[in-house]
Amino acid sequence: MKEFQLIRQIQRETSVASSCGVKLGIGDDAAVLEVPAGQYLVAATDTLNVGTHFPEDTSPYDIAFKCLAVNLSDLAAMGASPRWALLSLSLPEADPKWMQSFTTGFKSLAQVYDVALVGGDTTSGPLSISLTALGLIAPGRQLTRSGAKPGDLLVVSGTIGGAARALDLLQAGQAVIGRDLLDRPQPRVKLGQALVTFANACIDISDGLLADLGHVLKASGCGARIDIDKLPAAKSLAGLGDEARWNYQLSGGDDYELLFTLPPHHKELLATWSQQLDIKLSIIGEIEEGRSICCISPNGTIYDPQKAGFEHFSQKS
Amino acid sequence: MKEFQLIRQIQRETSVASSCGVKLGIGDDAAVLEVPAGQYLVAATDTLNVGTHFPEDTSPYDIAFKCLAVNLSDLAAMGASPRWALLSLSLPEADPKWMQSFTTGFKSLAQVYDVALVGGDTTSGPLSISLTALGLIAPGRQLTRSGAKPGDLLVVSGTIGGAARALDLLQAGQAVIGRDLLDRPQPRVKLGQALVTFANACIDISDGLLADLGHVLKASGCGARIDIDKLPAAKSLAGLGDEARWNYQLSGGDDYELLFTLPPHHKELLATWSQQLDIKLSIIGEIEEGRSICCISPNGTIYDPQKAGFEHFSQKS
Repeated sequence: MKEFQLIRQIQRETSVASSCGVKLGIGDDAAVLEVPAGQYLVAATDTLNVGTHFPEDTSPYDIAFKCLAVNLSDLAAMGASPRWALLSLSLPEADPKWMQSFTTGFKSLAQVYDVALVGGDTTSGPLSISLTALGLIAPGRQLTRSGAKPGDLLVVSGTIGGAARALDLLQAGQAVIGRDLLDRPQPRVKLGQALVTFANACIDISDGLLADLGHVLKASGCGARIDIDKLPAAKSLAGLGDEARWNYQLSGGDDYELLFTLPPHHKELLATWSQQLDIKLSIIGEIEEGRSICCISPNGTIYDPQKAGFEHFSQKS
Repeated sequence: MKEFQLIRQIQRETSVASSCGVKLGIGDDAAVLEVPAGQYLVAATDTLNVGTHFPEDTSPYDIAFKCLAVNLSDLAAMGASPRWALLSLSLPEADPKWMQSFTTGFKSLAQVYDVALVGGDTTSGPLSISLTALGLIAPGRQLTRSGAKPGDLLVVSGTIGGAARALDLLQAGQAVIGRDLLDRPQPRVKLGQALVTFANACIDISDGLLADLGHVLKASGCGARIDIDKLPAAKSLAGLGDEARWNYQLSGGDDYELLFTLPPHHKELLATWSQQLDIKLSIIGEIEEGRSICCISPNGTIYDPQKAGFEHFSQKS
C-alpha cells in the first residue's frame, strides 16, 4: 500500500476552504498547528471497527461520515469548536473506488464544520478507522459531566432510540426505517457551543440515555428523575408497544444527541435555541438529590428498567 | 468490555509525575489542554496492527512501548517536546494480565519523556493500537523534510538495519539477535530538540534509509550521495556479506533513528551532541544538486541498489 499517496488522496479530496491555524499539514512527520492565544485545546479520539461499530454492508461514505461525526459529537459535548482531525485508516486492500466514497463522505461532514485533515496514516489490516478530533474552547468554559446540580432541568436534543431500532431491523433482515439515524448521526456542534456558560453538565448519548446519564450523575454526585412520557421518540419507533419503545429510548445507543442539565432559570433559552438551530429540545426530567435514576411511567408509577430486562443498562452503568 | 474501567486502569497505571497543561484529562467526552503561549502544537498519529507492525508473539509490554515510541519518534523528527497522548485500543478480549503488561510497557517510556495519557477509547476488535502524540515547539522552529540544501552533511543517529535483521531472523525461525532493536526502538527526542535551528531537514527512519531519504529529497528538491562504508551497522549485521549488510542498512525499516541534513559549518556540533546525548552520529554522505540518490561503494564505484533487487526501495520511493 502506498501510504503517502493514499493520505494525499484523502487530503486532496477532503480539503476544506479553511486551513485556519495549520502551519504544516499532511506530508511531514507531524502536523504543526497554532492554537490561538486565549484558547484551550480540546482533544477526543474514537475508533470504529467493522462489525462492532458499523454493519459489514455500510458504505465507505457512511463509515467516514460516522467516524468523523462521533468524534465531533465528543467535541460538541464539551462545547468546543472543531478545528482539525488526524485519521488512521487500516484497510484490507487499497481500493480507489472505496477510497473515493470514503473521502466524499468525510468531506461532506468536514466542510460543514471547517475541519481540516492535518495528518494520519494508512496501514494494511482489518477495516478500522481511528480519528482524533481537535477543537478549541475558551479557558474554563468547557461543558463537563461533573457540573449537574439538583433542580437542573434534564434536556435531550433531537429524538432517541432510532439508531438502535435501525440496527435491530437490519440484523433481523427486515426493511430498515431510519437507517440514516444509524449511519449518519448529526453531531450537535452548534448546540454544544450555545450551551457554554448556561448548561451545568453535558454528555453525548453514545451508549444509551440511561448509561450516559449514569456517567453524568456519577461525576456530579446526583440522582435524576426521568419522565418517560417526555422522551422524544424517533419516527421509526411508532407502532411499537410501550415497553419496547421505552427500551429503545432509554437504552438504545449510537444516537449522538446531547443530554444536558440546565438551571431552571435558563428554561426560556430552550425555545430560542430550538428555533435558531432548528433542533428539537425536550425537557425529559430533572436532576435530584441522591444517586439513582428514577423513571416515572406515564401513569405516574415508578418504572424499573432493570427489572424489565434492560441488558444494556445493567451492563454499562 | 467495560470501556471506562479499562481506560481508567490504563490512566492509573500509566500516570506520570507531570500532568502539565492538562486542564481536564481522562473521564469526560474529551480532554482539555493548555498549549502555552508562544508554542505551536505538534501532532502525529500512527497505528500498529498485529502481524503487520509487530509479530504475533510480541509481548503487550513491547507493543505498548513500540506504539508510543514510533509516535514520539515522529515528534522527535520535528524537534518537538512530547507532552500528551491519546490512545485507541482494539482488543479481542479484555484480559487483565495483558493490560497489566501493556500499561507497564507504556509507562516505562511515557515517564522518560513526561508524556501524560489524556484520552482514548477501548473497543473490541482485532488487536490494533492507534496513538496520537501531541507535543510543543516554538513557532517556526520545527524541523521539516523540505529544508535540505546542496552541501549539507547527511547524518544518521545510532545504527541501522538491526530491526529488519531481527525480524528476518524471527520469521526464519532462527535465534534472534538484537530483538530489542525491533521491539523497543528508542525515539531520539533529545537529539531532535538539539537539532532545532541547526539542521536544515530531518526525518525519522521508519521505512528504511533510502525510502525516507527519498521523502526528504523530494520535499527539498535535491539529490544526495551516500558513502556506503560510512553507514553505521547494527551489531547483528556482523558476519553478513557486503550486499546483504548494505541491504539491511539501506532498506531495513523500523529503526526510528533520525536522518538529518546539517550545514557543514555546524559540523563540530556533532561531536558535542554525540557526547552530551551519548548517541552515535555518523556522517554518511552529502546533499547534492539533482534529484537522485547516488550510492558510492567502498571501492569508489557507484552501487545501484535497485539493480541489486532492493524490493523495499523500488516499492516505496
